[in-house]
Amino acid sequence: MRWVLPDHIQDALPSEAEKLEALRRKLLDAFRTHGYQLVMPPLLEYLDSLTTGAGQDLRLRTYQLVDQLSGRTMGVRADMTPQVTRIDSHLLNRQGVSRLCYCGSVLHTLPSTLTATREPLQLGAELYGHAGIEADIEILRLLAEVMRLADVPATRIDIGHVGLFHALAARAGFVPEREEMLFDVLQSKDVPGLRDMLAGVEAPVREALLLLPQLYGGAEVLDIAAARLPKDAEVLAALDDLQRLAAALSDLPISFDLSDLRGYHYHSGVVFAAYGKGSPAALALGGRYDRVAEAFGRSRPATGFSLDLRELALGLPELATDGAILAPAVVDAGLAAEVTALRARGEIVVAALPGHDGTWNEAGCDRQLVMRGGRWTVEPLQGE
Amino acid sequence: MRWVLPDHIQDALPSEAEKLEALRRKLLDAFRTHGYQLVMPPLLEYLDSLTTGAGQDLRLRTYQLVDQLSGRTMGVRADMTPQVTRIDSHLLNRQGVSRLCYCGSVLHTLPSTLTATREPLQLGAELYGHAGIEADIEILRLLAEVMRLADVPATRIDIGHVGLFHALAARAGFVPEREEMLFDVLQSKDVPGLRDMLAGVEAPVREALLLLPQLYGGAEVLDIAAARLPKDAEVLAALDDLQRLAAALSDLPISFDLSDLRGYHYHSGVVFAAYGKGSPAALALGGRYDRVAEAFGRSRPATGFSLDLRELALGLPELATDGAILAPAVVDAGLAAEVTALRARGEIVVAALPGHDGTWNEAGCDRQLVMRGGRWTVEPLQGE
Repeated sequence: MRWVLPDHIQDALPSEAEKLEALRRKLLDAFRTHGYQLVMPPLLEYLDSLTTGAGQDLRLRTYQLVDQLSGRTMGVRADMTPQVTRIDSHLLNRQGVSRLCYCGSVLHTLPSTLTATREPLQLGAELYGHAGIEADIEILRLLAEVMRLADVPATRIDIGHVGLFHALAARAGFVPEREEMLFDVLQSKDVPGLRDMLAGVEAPVREALLLLPQLYGGAEVLDIAAARLPKDAEVLAALDDLQRLAAALSDLPISFDLSDLRGYHYHSGVVFAAYGKGSPAALALGGRYDRVAEAFGRSRPATGFSLDLRELALGLPELATDGAILAPAVVDAGLAAEVTALRARGEIVVAALPGHDGTWNEAGCDRQLVMRGGRWTVEPLQGE
Repeated sequence: MRWVLPDHIQDALPSEAEKLEALRRKLLDAFRTHGYQLVMPPLLEYLDSLTTGAGQDLRLRTYQLVDQLSGRTMGVRADMTPQVTRIDSHLLNRQGVSRLCYCGSVLHTLPSTLTATREPLQLGAELYGHAGIEADIEILRLLAEVMRLADVPATRIDIGHVGLFHALAARAGFVPEREEMLFDVLQSKDVPGLRDMLAGVEAPVREALLLLPQLYGGAEVLDIAAARLPKDAEVLAALDDLQRLAAALSDLPISFDLSDLRGYHYHSGVVFAAYGKGSPAALALGGRYDRVAEAFGRSRPATGFSLDLRELALGLPELATDGAILAPAVVDAGLAAEVTALRARGEIVVAALPGHDGTWNEAGCDRQLVMRGGRWTVEPLQGE
């Protein structure tokens, strides 16, 4: 059966494609009026640039290909964020702030869950050049606005901070490989595994890391964290960021989860996951990733979010649009002018082709253009 | 240098991306009002379905990957037309006419010319279910309309007919491999090579095939062809198609080239190439390909065209848009309402972030929102 698609790969047929296109335009328009400029990075790059600054997890998700021109290994992008970071760092070369947005397909070698697609339609916004929490606040507000515009308002936005983890892991004295293991154990909230890994670590750090998985809920967890975590400069700075976020975004449904280390390993500061009605999985992920640009050779603070437009559109109803108008096949200047005028008003006008009577309802026509008393008139198309 | 892209692969930075997005919307809107419904086939399919009904040339252009779920060979699409044909044949399953359109990136293993991209942004329209020349006429008119809308009106549309070639090759008694060689020799207008290949072929067929490369020009070449080519039913039918096209499209800059066999090997009837000002290469290719659906197991006539949106947008000037308005960073309900109102009118409003004075011109701002006499007012942003 030559028409069967690989698992976790799908077509968007007209009704879904129309929904996706309408949502794509609406969200890109919102990005535009907020000052986020559109960029279109390529599907294909050398593997090194695609996975620069990110961890092994992104590399495993990336399809690899050999460049027949250079013999070098290329990848099909699995995530557009590092690409947009490359554009900010080396192509735009701005000294101040740059705000960029994008929408394009990415490919994953394996689906991330049993129901996930391997071809998300990634849409996102990134803010470069500002290290302060104001940038994270702007990005979180923009995410909430995007979800509202998509008619899937955020029901919960979970916020964490990778800086807390890094500060504590550094105090534990772990080598990078062991820190990465600790990251994975904490990310999967595997408390017994965490206890095992921390067996030889000095008491205050061990207790702090064991405390993290319990620190979730409203802004009150920030007070508990301030009272019970070590008073390192890095810990205090991270908690101060989160306090300021909580104060600035009190009108949004935010909550904190201090062991939440979502997304790829490239995040370095505030991280977040947004949820909407009807979907147990996060609809959007984001956060700060100041070290990615550094890996491209130019240090630039960075924060942003991205989401899968297909997932976001999933729960939306079909667009309620008028059917098409069937126009006669005859060639006639008056008819042509009428058809042009109808199309200019946004009507769909389909030219009849000979020999297909009885099939035009199936083709989406519910009206027809007929000559009545010397004038072209739109009438219902019945009894097809 | 981790930020260097592979050859023949490129980013679209903001000014180009904005142009591409505007053109994409304009052309998809035109398709819509002409009754062409949007579909979004996947980037990735099993190699067999991607190249079904097409020749070896498409297979060589297609990047191959191994599916980690099934172990089967997949390809990244190099052409969306066979995908859209699969959708028409097996998913929509209509009895009458279906009109479909699409816009998406495709990848080519190697560039087709010294200056070509390996990642065209393919945009196209396809009409299924109607075998008559009326469908080809509609598609050619739509192509001319699309080029007019893109401000690159067609300066020449070259029309050929693969049916003529097939009829003559069949009379020459060539086996399929030899017919494919003949196709290539004719496509490259290699007359000495053609003479060699035809050495043993009976005189009337040999002369007819040698005549083809001379049959280019206005509608008069159709009269010469009618007088001098063998009077086979298939030859006469092809010439009748072309005569009807010439009569119906006399207002378009069409010309005929009866040895032009452009495009992939899947074409079976009328084929065409459209040219615009400032580009020696064809901007759009298309034609009839009735046999592709057959290879998917369901016989459906098909005709359509596609083009590379990047190529089409190349000569267009940058969009003349207003610069952005810089808004103060302070949090204030009156200011927020003013910013929302400006954005609703399509203005770009950028929120100032602390510490970046002097960089807002670089970020695209040419105006600022300031409080004057108790009212928020937009003023020029100067002396940055």
